Amino acid sequence: MSTYIPGLQGVVAVQTNKSKVDGQAGELVIAGFKLEEIASRATFEEMVYLLWFDRLPTASELHAFTQSLAELRALPDATLALLKASASPTLDLMDALRMATGTLGLDAPAGDADEWLAKRLLATFPTIVAAAWRLANGKDPIAPDPSLGHAANYLYMLEGKAPSAARVRGLETYLNTVIDHGSNASTFTARVIMSTGTDFVSAIVGAIGALKGPLHGGAPGPALDMVFEIGQAENAEGVLRKKLDAGELLMGFGHRVYKVRDPRADVLSKAAHEFYEADGDMALYNLVQDVEQTAIRLLEEYKPGRNLQTNVEFYTALLLHGLDFPIPLFTPTFAVSRVGGWLAHCFEQRAEGRIIRPQSEYTGVDDRKWVPVEKR
Amino acid sequence: MSTYIPGLQGVVAVQTNKSKVDGQAGELVIAGFKLEEIASRATFEEMVYLLWFDRLPTASELHAFTQSLAELRALPDATLALLKASASPTLDLMDALRMATGTLGLDAPAGDADEWLAKRLLATFPTIVAAAWRLANGKDPIAPDPSLGHAANYLYMLEGKAPSAARVRGLETYLNTVIDHGSNASTFTARVIMSTGTDFVSAIVGAIGALKGPLHGGAPGPALDMVFEIGQAENAEGVLRKKLDAGELLMGFGHRVYKVRDPRADVLSKAAHEFYEADGDMALYNLVQDVEQTAIRLLEEYKPGRNLQTNVEFYTALLLHGLDFPIPLFTPTFAVSRVGGWLAHCFEQRAEGRIIRPQSEYTGVDDRKWVPVEKR
Repeated sequence: MSTYIPGLQGVVAVQTNKSKVDGQAGELVIAGFKLEEIASRATFEEMVYLLWFDRLPTASELHAFTQSLAELRALPDATLALLKASASPTLDLMDALRMATGTLGLDAPAGDADEWLAKRLLATFPTIVAAAWRLANGKDPIAPDPSLGHAANYLYMLEGKAPSAARVRGLETYLNTVIDHGSNASTFTARVIMSTGTDFVSAIVGAIGALKGPLHGGAPGPALDMVFEIGQAENAEGVLRKKLDAGELLMGFGHRVYKVRDPRADVLSKAAHEFYEADGDMALYNLVQDVEQTAIRLLEEYKPGRNLQTNVEFYTALLLHGLDFPIPLFTPTFAVSRVGGWLAHCFEQRAEGRIIRPQSEYTGVDDRKWVPVEKR
Repeated sequence: MSTYIPGLQGVVAVQTNKSKVDGQAGELVIAGFKLEEIASRATFEEMVYLLWFDRLPTASELHAFTQSLAELRALPDATLALLKASASPTLDLMDALRMATGTLGLDAPAGDADEWLAKRLLATFPTIVAAAWRLANGKDPIAPDPSLGHAANYLYMLEGKAPSAARVRGLETYLNTVIDHGSNASTFTARVIMSTGTDFVSAIVGAIGALKGPLHGGAPGPALDMVFEIGQAENAEGVLRKKLDAGELLMGFGHRVYKVRDPRADVLSKAAHEFYEADGDMALYNLVQDVEQTAIRLLEEYKPGRNLQTNVEFYTALLLHGLDFPIPLFTPTFAVSRVGGWLAHCFEQRAEGRIIRPQSEYTGVDDRKWVPVEKR
């Protein structure tokens, strides 16, 4: 019997050609591309194609892929009915997404439906999130526009008007940046479920449930809250010292894997710079720079040698806020991206054909004897 | 970097006081009790209480627990509406269970809802399965009867009439026997999801999706099909040899963990013997004995040294068939039991408070360079 490994830390449970995370070097490779080589260039559909098929599509392949996704965006009647029946201002959008996603296999074609289901899942995440968000705010869902790309249509379904090219590019860079990240807990969940030979919907529903968890990460709201709480550059040191003195974590800093600056923070910071500059108001961008520098300096002072660096959430918050996303949409929008990675891992796990089934160590007692209830 | 461990085989990923599986000795301990000490004595509610609270309840505790479960059996309106909207003779009942379970948090009380959700999930599994089954067959769902115990009410909701005491006892012994089994793939799934700090519904929905998979086990239908195909004792050797000559697996034999007879097969075989004897027709029971003996003998001849023994599915099939369960209800009924174990592991994992997050090894290429789509 081997030794118990808490949290499976350091155990290599997955082989993948989807992404490489080098936490020491601060490097993230997505299907052969360094993140900074591809994130701000590809459309989201191109990025997904790359992850699923391990190469960039030709123009005609990309056109066909984009079209086939656009055709699958509308929700089945049962899915929309469920979203309407459960709509409430207090319903967590991730719960709404998990519930609605569970129904997406209902109209799958007979036979080998994996690729159809993968496209259906990817295509409908924005439709579900936008519908749930609008319903929670007392508005009618907006039907998808098949003439728009995946990211543009997501913005359109949220607001009912066609977005600017700069917003679409900003959102695509975000979606491309967080699409895959090694065997993070939600991706590992999808692979464990998929390893039993089950269907794609089951694997993705499980992954959504894992992404919801506060220990998973992917919850950039609190990082933005902290920046707003600081409000002005001259308050940064005071507010941050108070938090550190009180033993609080600084949201947006530190990562389980990265010991240098998260490469995704670089990409998102550049994207945010471009977007805020185009938008003509750099105040928040500049404040965030100040907060970051102060936070890094204070973290080194309070926790020397821990190398707590800016993580992906910090600049996710800045970018998504700039793109007019309200905080409740941050994690669901992360899911709109990450489902592309989850599905890539589902294809890869299915090809492996082997169940992921570790052992457990029994820590309980032995040899209890039955006592009838009346004698207890 | 450690070495990739395919399927996490042999890795101890979980510490648990819920169950001990000793595959060499053929022993299964559930919360301190040898399976054969408790399975045919406890009510299902007692068994669940034991797993959740690590001791048998007193009479008043058991009464209160049983009552609180009975009160939570009815489905929320949105859940029932979804089952009705999606009902079809071809819908997999496990898909129906997964979809409906996803909606069970909608009316959870505010605040710390874990224990409420755990009870709600356990209480409603039979209601969902019975409703989905009846709807698939064009019948109206039957409302739960709070005066009946968990197992008796399940049978009642399937058929609309109160079951005999012998059937209830047979079903409870089955449910108690398969309630927990170390870190099997669905239980491990529930723990991985729970480890992110997410909610109980998310963990259980993921586990259902994993249990659905054909590599998980818990699909006793094919074992029964094989017995029916054989039909008479004198055909056993001929039919089985033909299958073995064709390289087919014999359903109901062999297990990843057990190298001797699965202790659950013993318990279920005794329960089946009692039930068939009380019912006055031992023909099928006797046929199954003959098939088992012939299969074990031929497996030793065809695959010497592999120790392929009778597993839990073989006698599950016999017992559930005797209790009048049709084959499409076999796996959902397994889930009606196993959810008790999943939830016990969720409580245990939540107390641990640590994310399960292994590493991955990158097997892809490096240093791909961006080529614009028009140049590909």
